[in-house]
Amino acid sequence: MTKLFVYHTPESVPQSSLPDCAIAVDVLRATTTIANALLSGAEAVQAFSDLDELMEVSNQWDSEKRIRIGERGGKKVDGFDLGNSPKSCTPERVGGKRIFMSTTNGTRALESIKHAPIVLTAAFTNRARVVEHLIEIKPEIIWVVGSGWEGAFSLEDTTCAGAIAALLLEKSGQDLLSLAGNDETIGAFALYKLYRDNLLQMAKLASHGQRMLGLNLLPDMEYCIQQDILDVLPIQREPGVLVKA
Amino acid sequence: MTKLFVYHTPESVPQSSLPDCAIAVDVLRATTTIANALLSGAEAVQAFSDLDELMEVSNQWDSEKRIRIGERGGKKVDGFDLGNSPKSCTPERVGGKRIFMSTTNGTRALESIKHAPIVLTAAFTNRARVVEHLIEIKPEIIWVVGSGWEGAFSLEDTTCAGAIAALLLEKSGQDLLSLAGNDETIGAFALYKLYRDNLLQMAKLASHGQRMLGLNLLPDMEYCIQQDILDVLPIQREPGVLVKA
Repeated sequence: MTKLFVYHTPESVPQSSLPDCAIAVDVLRATTTIANALLSGAEAVQAFSDLDELMEVSNQWDSEKRIRIGERGGKKVDGFDLGNSPKSCTPERVGGKRIFMSTTNGTRALESIKHAPIVLTAAFTNRARVVEHLIEIKPEIIWVVGSGWEGAFSLEDTTCAGAIAALLLEKSGQDLLSLAGNDETIGAFALYKLYRDNLLQMAKLASHGQRMLGLNLLPDMEYCIQQDILDVLPIQREPGVLVKA
Repeated sequence: MTKLFVYHTPESVPQSSLPDCAIAVDVLRATTTIANALLSGAEAVQAFSDLDELMEVSNQWDSEKRIRIGERGGKKVDGFDLGNSPKSCTPERVGGKRIFMSTTNGTRALESIKHAPIVLTAAFTNRARVVEHLIEIKPEIIWVVGSGWEGAFSLEDTTCAGAIAALLLEKSGQDLLSLAGNDETIGAFALYKLYRDNLLQMAKLASHGQRMLGLNLLPDMEYCIQQDILDVLPIQREPGVLVKA
């Protein structure tokens, strides 16, 4: 029997324990971008909280074989190859390359769970593939960690956590009371139930969605709220380095 | 135009600003008990985080004119007159008396907002009266602060915050995007939409609800999830002291 714990932010992740499997979620847009990059043939995605550390490590890499993705406050960081737009990760652009990535919040979610024995990333686009893997490996304890926004609850990540819970309920036959490890899981499930047929409305209500609309990023938003369109499972190979399973 | 911010816990309340009106919510059971106590004629309810401080202050009070309510982990504190059961606050018991109260989480929510210019407490039972007051005074910024449970999200308090948001939307004519100050407000609204017709189911799913069932407190739970049954507005007269408006 699986217990699923949702944590709204990296800051709320317990410090004194580890789950069997931890999943980072940053729907708008880091984990959506990671799914696209790996499906497009990137060799790996290496995530950094700190931009200076990213530069130091990536400088040691063959410049033909690396792509730097940097985003702060929704915008591309000067001097980086790409901002955090999933659609820019085409096979032509990222195929065979190592991606060095730092985003405002998403990479902090990954950082907070990097010591778990199994670390995945999920977005709406690859939710079904992630849940399929969970059904296969049957972890007793799962954490789903939203990126939040500067320490606060993020609507779209919590809704995606609810989408994972909803599909896991359906596939496992467990009920909500037995699956939910904490109240946050039930809140996430409620959000998904309310918005499952109109995720774009949810994203537009979200504070980060509003920020993206102000940056003319509606096409990215429309891309990110598509459910179960990508058959890709990003999994951590070593701390901070994700590959396609 | 009103902006409503929901904070899941006292710990997540901003330290550097104050709202026009702040509302503490601890459905199971502190703010439900406060509503009952004031409606039953208690002179005032004085809330304390710390049990020793409560004893020190209440010892200076005429013993005929005081009632001590103490709860930790769902149980009455030894030596106190009452635990945190709303139904025990009858007119015979509390009429004309000062209540000195300390509960595991609810009194910490009050503590976190005591410097706001207007401080109210809300529960499902007196929600309509609270919203009626908000419509009258038209605050620009409202905070609704859940008690949480030892620093984590509490399902029943967030659902009650959503109930306040839902009725405010209905009475004010604002839409959700213009009312919601943060993503937490939208998440709370979703919870209320999902469970509004079955709040008992929600309370039984909640981790604190589960704890109460283990302590044979189902009758209290059934009492606490009744909506809009009490016409009472608890309002802070001085920091930590609540009276009937």
